[in-house]
Amino acid sequence: MNFGIDDLPVRDELRGKSPYGAPQLDVPVRLNTNENPYPLPEPLVERIAERVREAARGLNRYPDRDAVELRTELAKYLTRTGGHRVGPENVWAANGSNEVIQQFLQAFGGPGRTAIGFEPSYSMHALIARGTGTGWISGPRGADFTIDVAAAEKAVAGHRPDVVFVTTPNNPTGNAVPADTVLALYEAAQAVKPTMVVVDEAYVEFSHGASLLPLLEGRPHLVVSRTMSKAFGAAGLRLGYLAAHPAVVDALQLVRLPYHLSAITQVTALAALEHTDTLLGYVEQLKSERDRLVGELRAIGCDVTESDANFVQFGRFEDSHDAWRRILDRGVLVRDNGVPGWLRVTAGTPAENDAFLDAVRDLKKEQEQSG
Amino acid sequence: MNFGIDDLPVRDELRGKSPYGAPQLDVPVRLNTNENPYPLPEPLVERIAERVREAARGLNRYPDRDAVELRTELAKYLTRTGGHRVGPENVWAANGSNEVIQQFLQAFGGPGRTAIGFEPSYSMHALIARGTGTGWISGPRGADFTIDVAAAEKAVAGHRPDVVFVTTPNNPTGNAVPADTVLALYEAAQAVKPTMVVVDEAYVEFSHGASLLPLLEGRPHLVVSRTMSKAFGAAGLRLGYLAAHPAVVDALQLVRLPYHLSAITQVTALAALEHTDTLLGYVEQLKSERDRLVGELRAIGCDVTESDANFVQFGRFEDSHDAWRRILDRGVLVRDNGVPGWLRVTAGTPAENDAFLDAVRDLKKEQEQSG
Repeated sequence: MNFGIDDLPVRDELRGKSPYGAPQLDVPVRLNTNENPYPLPEPLVERIAERVREAARGLNRYPDRDAVELRTELAKYLTRTGGHRVGPENVWAANGSNEVIQQFLQAFGGPGRTAIGFEPSYSMHALIARGTGTGWISGPRGADFTIDVAAAEKAVAGHRPDVVFVTTPNNPTGNAVPADTVLALYEAAQAVKPTMVVVDEAYVEFSHGASLLPLLEGRPHLVVSRTMSKAFGAAGLRLGYLAAHPAVVDALQLVRLPYHLSAITQVTALAALEHTDTLLGYVEQLKSERDRLVGELRAIGCDVTESDANFVQFGRFEDSHDAWRRILDRGVLVRDNGVPGWLRVTAGTPAENDAFLDAVRDLKKEQEQSG
Repeated sequence: MNFGIDDLPVRDELRGKSPYGAPQLDVPVRLNTNENPYPLPEPLVERIAERVREAARGLNRYPDRDAVELRTELAKYLTRTGGHRVGPENVWAANGSNEVIQQFLQAFGGPGRTAIGFEPSYSMHALIARGTGTGWISGPRGADFTIDVAAAEKAVAGHRPDVVFVTTPNNPTGNAVPADTVLALYEAAQAVKPTMVVVDEAYVEFSHGASLLPLLEGRPHLVVSRTMSKAFGAAGLRLGYLAAHPAVVDALQLVRLPYHLSAITQVTALAALEHTDTLLGYVEQLKSERDRLVGELRAIGCDVTESDANFVQFGRFEDSHDAWRRILDRGVLVRDNGVPGWLRVTAGTPAENDAFLDAVRDLKKEQEQSG
């Protein structure tokens, strides 16, 4: 018999669990992890190599622990595109927005505290809560995947969470949460006790609407988290960040591991920020492809959730895992997020999206013939 | 009045705390953070730029979540230099050994569990315990900074920790822990209950003796942690790793954030591993300089703790913080780790070490004149 995890003194809540992560399958068209399909432009690749070469010459030294240059440039980007002025003192960065959220929960969640999210939503929020000992509360969403303000307020009043997560645009459903809903939740939470509210805007650059950054004004318990994985086409870089009151940034510095952000990561992110305009050009193409996916899926006869992200939730299938498998059989990998009846497809290149749409048409034809 | 951390609903145990980290001061000779003073050789810098350029072309995709190529090469390095055969299934890597240890405590420590270290030792162990909700027990060390086996066994039997940390060579004292002591502690801990034992070998490449990797054989509760920050001269890279039974690696994958290690970090580490022999050549120079520091400090009249690391603990000073300041006044930054009477100096280049030794001679002269 093999010696395995259960033979070790691991924490009880980990027994029987599997590692998080989408299947990494080698298929022609991968539209399952909301990656940006456009490789970085060659001038940016060269600029990264150049900045990394320079940084590598000082790699024997620890990196800037506070990542001041990077936070300054991220602040400029947010100020320019988010409709709200922030400075480096408002910004914190880490290895992916997952690490940002982990640090956040180490400071504001943790043992004896709870966090709520409105599900289905980004499943890492609940997993990071578990990893930090924060109790997790699954808040409600309507059948159309919107957040009903009255139901959400009731959940907040009843559970008295320490942290409220609102993902907008929401993953995996794709729809945005109106600013009014976020404001109502913020007020409802504060009415119970001082409560931190995290607005996860990982996909906001793909939105038809505006960022909720301006809501930070006068709301020190509000946090807006972001990532360079999607709009900046840099999932492989692992660079997440947030904007908040400077006191929140100070609090995160109490729990961050010292030198958590490598010198190489810092300069690579800086290089990408130099090419913001080019990268946001790709975002415009992806938004247009996303809108095309929504239109064509509806024309095929699918139900589609309104999308403000770089992906589309479509259905409905009696057996969504079977539908996932049939689409995969046609060489297209989409995501089964476990939302009954629904699947999620990332907006890829026009050719990738065509391959996906063909697969769905085939699937529909099969279902009609057998139905 | 400014709105600050204490006005936020942060966890109570963070109130009044300051961020961890040595002062980052701009002085001519910085011998305070055990960095390797030798910049990476230019061919390695070029190789990093080359591999990063290649990786940047795929940066829109998530990195290999399991970092298999990197773990394979780390396993080869350990097998070649550590006297014990390990494979990729035995190795896990993260953003610095701090993150490795944080993941380890998320899996094997955490709320309701405790960890013990023998202090003074690497202070991040206690801080990461706090950050993961793991209770911290300060175990004893003798006046000569060795671990007394009987006293340590008694502490383990009395406190019944879930995790035992042994840092060897120890930081900040510099001395190595004999294999017999580690074995005795391992056995003493297992006699109480199944207990994980972490041997932190961050500085082992600088040791006069051998790695304790061979102790992994037949001991699934033993873990050996390592880093590329010191011997590989890559503090700016943030690459830590550990070797253990494959079941331990499986357990860490339950708590690691998905895609925690960027594609850029993975290829940069791989490039450095290609240049292992050159980098270990620098280690030999540093060992020789370390031995020179020990000898010259003793000749000056200092007490010196035996060192198997790339730094030396020296004293004794009636007021060690005053001595730290007087050395800094001469342009040399050493470390005051809060061990009463003692300071720590990193082995730098021969010129840096000369500047440091001159400063200590001056200091001694002053003290004799005033004494």
